[in-house]
Amino acid sequence: MTTPRQRPAAWVERLAALYSPVVCDVLDKLGRRSQALGPEVRPLFPGARCAGFAVTVLSAPARVLAPEQPYDLQLTAIDSLQPGDVLVSSRCDAAFWGELLSTAARYRGCTGVVVDGYCRDTPAIRAMGFPVFCRGVHPSDSLGRVETVAYNVPVVCAGVVVEPGDLILADEDGTVVVPHDLAEAVLTAAEEKVRGENVVRQKLAEGIGVVEAFRRYGIL
Amino acid sequence: MTTPRQRPAAWVERLAALYSPVVCDVLDKLGRRSQALGPEVRPLFPGARCAGFAVTVLSAPARVLAPEQPYDLQLTAIDSLQPGDVLVSSRCDAAFWGELLSTAARYRGCTGVVVDGYCRDTPAIRAMGFPVFCRGVHPSDSLGRVETVAYNVPVVCAGVVVEPGDLILADEDGTVVVPHDLAEAVLTAAEEKVRGENVVRQKLAEGIGVVEAFRRYGIL
Amino acid sequence: MTTPRQRPAAWVERLAALYSPVVCDVLDKLGRRSQALGPEVRPLFPGARCAGFAVTVLSAPARVLAPEQPYDLQLTAIDSLQPGDVLVSSRCDAAFWGELLSTAARYRGCTGVVVDGYCRDTPAIRAMGFPVFCRGVHPSDSLGRVETVAYNVPVVCAGVVVEPGDLILADEDGTVVVPHDLAEAVLTAAEEKVRGENVVRQKLAEGIGVVEAFRRYGIL
Amino acid sequence: MTTPRQRPAAWVERLAALYSPVVCDVLDKLGRRSQALGPEVRPLFPGARCAGFAVTVLSAPARVLAPEQPYDLQLTAIDSLQPGDVLVSSRCDAAFWGELLSTAARYRGCTGVVVDGYCRDTPAIRAMGFPVFCRGVHPSDSLGRVETVAYNVPVVCAGVVVEPGDLILADEDGTVVVPHDLAEAVLTAAEEKVRGENVVRQKLAEGIGVVEAFRRYGIL
Amino acid sequence: MTTPRQRPAAWVERLAALYSPVVCDVLDKLGRRSQALGPEVRPLFPGARCAGFAVTVLSAPARVLAPEQPYDLQLTAIDSLQPGDVLVSSRCDAAFWGELLSTAARYRGCTGVVVDGYCRDTPAIRAMGFPVFCRGVHPSDSLGRVETVAYNVPVVCAGVVVEPGDLILADEDGTVVVPHDLAEAVLTAAEEKVRGENVVRQKLAEGIGVVEAFRRYGIL
Amino acid sequence: MTTPRQRPAAWVERLAALYSPVVCDVLDKLGRRSQALGPEVRPLFPGARCAGFAVTVLSAPARVLAPEQPYDLQLTAIDSLQPGDVLVSSRCDAAFWGELLSTAARYRGCTGVVVDGYCRDTPAIRAMGFPVFCRGVHPSDSLGRVETVAYNVPVVCAGVVVEPGDLILADEDGTVVVPHDLAEAVLTAAEEKVRGENVVRQKLAEGIGVVEAFRRYGIL
Repeated sequence: MTTPRQRPAAWVERLAALYSPVVCDVLDKLGRRSQALGPEVRPLFPGARCAGFAVTVLSAPARVLAPEQPYDLQLTAIDSLQPGDVLVSSRCDAAFWGELLSTAARYRGCTGVVVDGYCRDTPAIRAMGFPVFCRGVHPSDSLGRVETVAYNVPVVCAGVVVEPGDLILADEDGTVVVPHDLAEAVLTAAEEKVRGENVVRQKLAEGIGVVEAFRRYGIL
Repeated sequence: MTTPRQRPAAWVERLAALYSPVVCDVLDKLGRRSQALGPEVRPLFPGARCAGFAVTVLSAPARVLAPEQPYDLQLTAIDSLQPGDVLVSSRCDAAFWGELLSTAARYRGCTGVVVDGYCRDTPAIRAMGFPVFCRGVHPSDSLGRVETVAYNVPVVCAGVVVEPGDLILADEDGTVVVPHDLAEAVLTAAEEKVRGENVVRQKLAEGIGVVEAFRRYGIL
Repeated sequence: MTTPRQRPAAWVERLAALYSPVVCDVLDKLGRRSQALGPEVRPLFPGARCAGFAVTVLSAPARVLAPEQPYDLQLTAIDSLQPGDVLVSSRCDAAFWGELLSTAARYRGCTGVVVDGYCRDTPAIRAMGFPVFCRGVHPSDSLGRVETVAYNVPVVCAGVVVEPGDLILADEDGTVVVPHDLAEAVLTAAEEKVRGENVVRQKLAEGIGVVEAFRRYGIL
Repeated sequence: MTTPRQRPAAWVERLAALYSPVVCDVLDKLGRRSQALGPEVRPLFPGARCAGFAVTVLSAPARVLAPEQPYDLQLTAIDSLQPGDVLVSSRCDAAFWGELLSTAARYRGCTGVVVDGYCRDTPAIRAMGFPVFCRGVHPSDSLGRVETVAYNVPVVCAGVVVEPGDLILADEDGTVVVPHDLAEAVLTAAEEKVRGENVVRQKLAEGIGVVEAFRRYGIL
Repeated sequence: MTTPRQRPAAWVERLAALYSPVVCDVLDKLGRRSQALGPEVRPLFPGARCAGFAVTVLSAPARVLAPEQPYDLQLTAIDSLQPGDVLVSSRCDAAFWGELLSTAARYRGCTGVVVDGYCRDTPAIRAMGFPVFCRGVHPSDSLGRVETVAYNVPVVCAGVVVEPGDLILADEDGTVVVPHDLAEAVLTAAEEKVRGENVVRQKLAEGIGVVEAFRRYGIL
Repeated sequence: MTTPRQRPAAWVERLAALYSPVVCDVLDKLGRRSQALGPEVRPLFPGARCAGFAVTVLSAPARVLAPEQPYDLQLTAIDSLQPGDVLVSSRCDAAFWGELLSTAARYRGCTGVVVDGYCRDTPAIRAMGFPVFCRGVHPSDSLGRVETVAYNVPVVCAGVVVEPGDLILADEDGTVVVPHDLAEAVLTAAEEKVRGENVVRQKLAEGIGVVEAFRRYGIL
């Protein structure tokens, strides 16, 4: 991951205006059928959604109970966040995230967090409106439970490979990973598909059969 | 399933006025103790509830990635829906249902969908208020992931046999299947039990012990 | 468990003013790192929270379908509840709890229920605002499904040993068990930690890095 | 399933001489990538293997505890077995199979049983050498636990659609379903692939690199 | 559990001569349909089987990492074992048992161990032929992982209530718990059923249909 | 991982002479309590055991169905294997390993494979006696199912961080990871503990109580 990847702000804006199913449909058409995280990763609160460039974290069960440098790499990763970033962590079985980290991440312009693991401080994070996607919540701290082994390396998050700089869209239907080199193509095709769906929706509301609708428009 | 089964509209109305626990209690008394779906099938949004006659779908992992007739039987099943129907699908591990299908099903008078699998387009379906019960949400389309093998055949949904024409009641506490031949008996007994519960609730709020309440009224 | 344990009402009040993560952090520091229930036990409705002294129930799959004394020990346990109690049940796979029991428990001053199992009558319990924490909901009655084997004995609830009289705090982030003999120490230390977090939160909102914040305050 | 399907005895013989991985590889090439049962279905004893034509059973949790006709359809299905049949059952959570049924099935020429559920009488079945593939063993009878809803209908077994008459090969690596209309093509291609693997195996044992081996032979 | 329960050595002998499925069938007939442990508890090595009187242990995740009295109650329980005892432990997620404890338990006449958890030192225990039934194996010690909270109290083991003194039969098909007060009745009925099965087995091997066999003998 | 790590052949020999529980006990004493893989990773056949230096593979669900360079990095990793290596793969849900790869790996001196995933060609691999540890077996090829994202990077395997060059011991009780910098200390302490266990085993066989044995020798 030596060359810095392009990070057009317009990509984040355009992606944020879409929704995860239409992005998945377009990725399916391009032969990328495994880009949606498993359904166990859910929004921490209703209405949470975020889009941005992935900063990846390789999390693991902590190797020592009381490390000399507690939280070490996790904190370095957070301090490195830039506007438009989404923090993405691999599997962990305790709370990787909480309110104070949300406060720090948001200050740096991070647009959200996706973790194949747990979060805590739910009421405060919801009050801030900072979007977090996770397997669930757990009140215990990560110290001595979860360790950050590396960051900005390829990781697997809920069944999907995420590389640093990939585009992430997380909303109520799930989280989808757009590989960096397909970003422009996916955004353009998804914007077009949205227009087609609007037509079909109207026809179905008027009573056309679904067999006929699919025959005529090829969309469902 | 050759003779068409009776479909009194009054049954749907009466069932819709009940709630799933009282229906389960009455089925228990009749020796039908396995009529409630497992707790993994949940309302897609708070307040969702529906009642109606089961139209069943046997879903399965898709056998081919790009079938010649995409969505084939699933669409035929949806076009066949009539007022008062609830669509019920067996286990599948991707999104069986979405917004456009909800639009079409509602147009036909379908009162809701129960799927031992996944759904997508959550915000739009919630905005429509179309009741869906499912294991969760996933943004990927069913095409090449879930296949409809047959419809209006007996299926198993979250641990319960559902035959076409059985009565379904799905609410926040779960989904219960009333076998068609027990419908009248169950409805009548459940309506009566509701009245008994009202008496006990009042007594408990006034401080009677639960041991005493159960001894006196036989209800809890 | 022969000597009755101290039950200062002030403990319940002070605990209710805290939140589960800070209590876990303090317990961690005291070497009690396994006092938070697993994340599968969740509030029945948003905003549910409760604090109090544990009354424990050993639940199990029912041994007989139609016992001579239905619900027997479960009802005795409920009738024994006192103001400031939280009822805590070990693992069960059907609905241990419902609306009528909530009505009775609340009348006796019970402040909430934590069950490593299921609940029913969700809408009514939410309308009452009676806090229940559980694995999920299921519409079937406990009769012939769940049996109360004993009460006020040590039980394991979602991975944590709970002894009668231990302090329980359950909120949106999880449920934590404070061993009775550590109650005063935990309450005092947690109240102090809350003050420290307020300082750090302010600093992070002003842009201090997390590495620096942790170096300076030792809190995250 | 109205026209009886072809049942050449030679197919069973040829399939029995193959092994499940090579059959899966050939099905993959034909675009049928979902024909292997999930890894939870395992041989009941080491060395179990069988091949034959599927007779399917739709199993479900029993609807009544004490049916008027106990075991009804399950027994009819077993009495209908013919030489070269493999009995295949959909998901069930209790023992679908046991020693006495094995004795009867074997008498009729049934070559084995594949059940997405449980079996009992392990020592006796192993002593008979009758091949059973299942999720595990459980000592309780199916009566009042598992019900046969239908037989010789399409079913889903451990994630794979099985139609009556499909070819089944079950061995130590798993169970694969060969759709009836692909049988001849699959058998021929698999027999050929076995020959290619023999060449590569030899080369690898002589020290050729795997990169080179795959480049040269396209097999691994 | 104040009065010592009867412990006829003949019961252990007679039970050891039976097999778990026939004992389950007899318990089913007596309305005790939930006496078999879940299928996740398996023999540690092929051929393991044991019978005896339950000595129960309530296991739990360890509350402290380095207790003042390591292994305390667990060791006391083991030292209390008598000839004909089977040690039964509730759920734990680390190794509750190992070679040295097997050596000590066998010396005291303990006939086997059933744990809803893990074991280690598999090769040595198999070499001794000491029967252990468990969920699996794990190499880590119980110290700081599993704690014995109490012993000779009612516990739940893999879904079944076990009271001290109940009879246990564990073999390759599973583990069944015979309530102490039903022991004589169950043993007698099971011995009789074995004789009936011998007749049916013979008939089925001679080709009688299973429908006919069940009609004639009522056994399957 | 820039400096090559020390690889004394004597370490592999000494480790191979030990067994996983004693190595875990020693790691526990050193505060490294999370070095044993979860119990879901099991030997492919009885008697499998291996020791060596970890070569790590980051596996993931395949991103494309038909990659331009099939198996690419996986094969490069295998061709790089040296005498004394153990190949260790992170989680994957299809067969990562098979007979032909075993043939190639063994030729290069690889002493075994540990995969948090699946294997195929069980009979052939068992016949070769090549030790494989895995979650289970599945007959389908990895192509289009599992992808090698990177190798010789830190990975998480069944809950344990594995760095390239760490020492691995896998036997019937499980798989343990010895961090490279602790190797000498762990080997020495484990060899000593084995001697202590021999004494205690003898005493227990002679009837000493376990309470007394632990008091006297501090070993169990």
